[in-house]
This record gives sequence, C-alpha cells and structure tokens, in this order.
Amino acid sequence: MRVAKMHALGNSYIYVEEHEIAAIRHRLPELARTVSDVRKGIGSDGLIVIGSSTVADVRMQIFNADGSEAENCGNGLRCVAKYAYEQGLVSKQEFHVETKGGVFHAKIWPDERGTVPKVTVNMGPMRLGPQQVPYSGPAVVDNEVAVQVGEDNLSGTLVSVGNPHFVAFVEDAVTSNVAAIGPIIERHPWFPERINVEFVTPRSRQELDFRVWERGSGITFACGTGACASVAAGVSKGLLDNQVRVHLLGGDLDVAVKDGQIFMTGEAVHVFSGVYAWDDEGKREQGSRQ
Amino acid sequence: MRVAKMHALGNSYIYVEEHEIAAIRHRLPELARTVSDVRKGIGSDGLIVIGSSTVADVRMQIFNADGSEAENCGNGLRCVAKYAYEQGLVSKQEFHVETKGGVFHAKIWPDERGTVPKVTVNMGPMRLGPQQVPYSGPAVVDNEVAVQVGEDNLSGTLVSVGNPHFVAFVEDAVTSNVAAIGPIIERHPWFPERINVEFVTPRSRQELDFRVWERGSGITFACGTGACASVAAGVSKGLLDNQVRVHLLGGDLDVAVKDGQIFMTGEAVHVFSGVYAWDDEGKREQGSRQ
Repeated sequence: MRVAKMHALGNSYIYVEEHEIAAIRHRLPELARTVSDVRKGIGSDGLIVIGSSTVADVRMQIFNADGSEAENCGNGLRCVAKYAYEQGLVSKQEFHVETKGGVFHAKIWPDERGTVPKVTVNMGPMRLGPQQVPYSGPAVVDNEVAVQVGEDNLSGTLVSVGNPHFVAFVEDAVTSNVAAIGPIIERHPWFPERINVEFVTPRSRQELDFRVWERGSGITFACGTGACASVAAGVSKGLLDNQVRVHLLGGDLDVAVKDGQIFMTGEAVHVFSGVYAWDDEGKREQGSRQ
Repeated sequence: MRVAKMHALGNSYIYVEEHEIAAIRHRLPELARTVSDVRKGIGSDGLIVIGSSTVADVRMQIFNADGSEAENCGNGLRCVAKYAYEQGLVSKQEFHVETKGGVFHAKIWPDERGTVPKVTVNMGPMRLGPQQVPYSGPAVVDNEVAVQVGEDNLSGTLVSVGNPHFVAFVEDAVTSNVAAIGPIIERHPWFPERINVEFVTPRSRQELDFRVWERGSGITFACGTGACASVAAGVSKGLLDNQVRVHLLGGDLDVAVKDGQIFMTGEAVHVFSGVYAWDDEGKREQGSRQ
C-alpha cells in the first residue's frame, strides 16, 4: 500500500489514503500497531487514515501506536492539511478537517514550490477556570489553584482546550523537574480525570519557554493543546501579548489569541513516500504456512 | 533519494544504493543519524550503503544510528544479500559480500516469486578457548571459566566469532536475569576488552533457547554472532547436534557447524521502498534561511 510518513515537531505518523486500505478497514488497529513498530515496521506514533468527509473538506482518523483510536492531534492535523493540499485532495488554502473530536478549520501556507511547510489551525475557544476542567478542590481565585508538591506549593492556571491543563508559570521551565512534579499534579485528587501539566517561563511578552507532562504519556516533545493553554493562561494573567512563539522540546509553535479563539501555527514535515510491504508479507506468510 | 527499509529479527536498517548518495558521501554519518531517528526521520538501527566491490560481488557499508561506522552485522548482511538479488545487482544464488570486517559468503533462498525470505551466511571458523578472546583470568579447563556473580558462580564457555562471547548453559535462559548478571560478566576484570554474554538452554539437541547481553548494547532482540557462538559451545560440549534452531527474543536463527565453519540462516524482511525527503528538506531549509 502507498504510504507517507510526516512529522510535526517530531510527532510522527504514517499517513495512508482511505482507498489504499478499503479491503482491510477492519484490520486498521493491527496495521497501526505493525507499521508503528520501529523494529519490524516503519516506526511512528501511530497511523492516520485520510479520506473524504460529508461534513468537511477532508477527514482524518487517528490510531495510536497501540491500535486504539484517538480523537484528535494538532500535530497530525497540520500534516493532514499539508498532505491534502499537496496531493490535490483540496485546492483551497483554507478548509475544514473532520476528526473524531470535531471539525477544525485549517489554513495552509504554501511556498513558491507549492509545498506546505506550515499550517495554522483554529483550536477553538480559550476557556479558563475550574468549571472548565474536572476539578474537585477548594474554591479558586483568578482561575489559579495551588497544589502541594513535597514541602512547597505549585500554583497553576486551569485551562481547557478540549482537554484539561494546569499551567504553572515557573522561574525556569527548561530546568524544571518535570518528571518529579508532573505526575504528582497529574494524579492529584483534586483532578478526578487527571490533568496535563505545563511548566512555562516567558522570555518576553512574545516568547515562552515550555515543558510539559502529558496526561497518560509523561514528558513529550510537543503538546499543541498545552502550548495553546499556556498562551491562554499568560494572556489572561496579562503576562503575554496575543501572539506568542512557544519553545517546546521538539521545536517551536506560534500561538495567537483572537476574539477569544486560539490559533496554532506550526511546521508539517514530509519524511518519505513509498510502498509499505505489509500486505505482501501477510500473503507470503500465509503462503509459506500452507 | 530512493531508500528501502528491511529488517531481520527486528534489527532494522535503511538501505540506500551508492549512486543515490554520490553527492553527499561526506555527509553519511549525518544521514545515518537523521534517517534513524524515529521522531523526525524514518526510524532504524542505522544506515547501510550498498555498492559495487572490487573484491566481492557487492559491498556494504554500515553506519550505526549514532553515525559511527560498524564493521559488520549478520542481520544487515542477510538483508543486503536479499536486496542485491531481488534488485538484480547479482544474478547468482551464492555470492560474496564485502564488509569493513571482511568478505562473507552468502547463499540466498529465493521463493517461487523470486523474492528472498531467507539467507545463509558463512560466519567463518568456530574458535573456542581463552586464547581466542581477550582473557586475563586464571588458567582455564575445557574452555570453561567460572565467574563470581553475587554469592554464586556462573560458568561459561569462551568463544570467538570475530567478537568475544561468554556462553553460559543455564537452567532456563528465558527467565534468566540477563539485565542483572549480563553487565557483571561483560565488565569483569578478566575480560579486558569486555565480552558478550549468552544465556542458553537446549530444548533438545536441535533447539536452543537464547538470551543475550550484548557488549555495549545490553539486552537486544537478536545477536547473530551470539547465536553462532552458543551453538559452537554446545557442539563442543557434546550437548547439541551440528544443526540447531536458536530461539532469540526477536525470532529464530538456524545455525549449522560444518567442517569447523559456522553457517547462519535467517529471515530478511522487506518493510518498504520509497523516496526519502532528506535532500528536499535540506534545500528547503537553506532556501528559507536566505
């Protein structure tokens, strides 16, 4: 089957068009596991199927490397937008992408060669406060909650960008002990559905150092919703302007807040295109067993 | 550039023909690092360049994922032999492959479709005893040395298959505490250049359970030289016949000893072929910096 690999900030997926996998739709979880395995497959964070949509210009279906289906992924969404334009599935520079988590508006930024190095996605409204995330602690002032970590308290702003975030403005995000503090807050009893934990430090009003402890994943190189939540928190606290470059471990994202909506702009990088031998191997193995 | 990914027992490399990288020969270590990175590249244990040889039928040059050059890799060698035959670089079913570690004889086993699921490589002579591996301990009887591990002794046969091995016949290789015992023996002062450590248990005279602690790498899924060394040790001790199936964590290898030479037969699996965008990215990044 024809596949492509793309990544955004090191978050990589194998992309395949719907018609390539029509005969094996029921085996997509298996395909996702196999193709994501760097030892015997290609190696990725999962598989994304690109197809037609009845409610948007293009549709994406995301399978994690363990075969489970995911709702959405900002990094994958930018790569799908790039692919759809470069492969002629859409001809507009602004269009809608259907995901299991809803329909998103994407704007591609093609270069003079017609390739798309970066994409902007409208990530939806900025929503702050304890009523936005599952929270069961004491009353909150200014959307800020202080959680005990060892002998100290760490204070964070509660933000939802579809998923819940605890954004802590710290002295130096880059040297924060994310691995020690992150899991304590993620699993604190005040957050019954757990929470993503961001450590951020403004370099200026337009630049933010960022590290993240992702709910269920731990330290990751890039968390688009976390970057959006962090800028939303910084804007609400008056620490940041409404257009901010966020420095993540995997690279940079530009986050803008306009009319209460959050826009995320970032890279989408083509790694390779080719023919994956999964089907052949399956047939051959069956053959050799006979 | 046109590339392929192949694996053998989960030991995977990106394969590229010499003429594809003629213009960037000086950047091969960088290419190896980039392409091996599963996040922003394809993902592999390294890069293997396939080209013409003046002393053999085909030549392979191996770069590890860190960009360093390796001498040889039995798993990579089988994949090169498969590739050379399937792509028409050789038309014989037995031929020689030049590596930095010497010239090896390979025999491919094509199926009815002309593809090559398995390959046999002559791994060279079986060499046992302390004079074959760097060893500085007390005198040895029957090529066997007992090393203290905690309060116990672990006894192993000393074998060289180009690199040094300590092969321990244990009660149950599969449940051996490889991670605890392996590094103690690898770095024992009697082995001044360190040593690979194999834990093996015969299921019968033709079948061997196998786990390995690889010098410099730790637990790995497949170590071809370790499988060869283990069968050599078992044959010399009268525990194994001269044709043995070895069960490694990553899959099976068949090892035969004939006329003092060791022959290893195992799978070589094509994962995909395609066009890798490394050059494009390089140009685009340069372009966007101007």
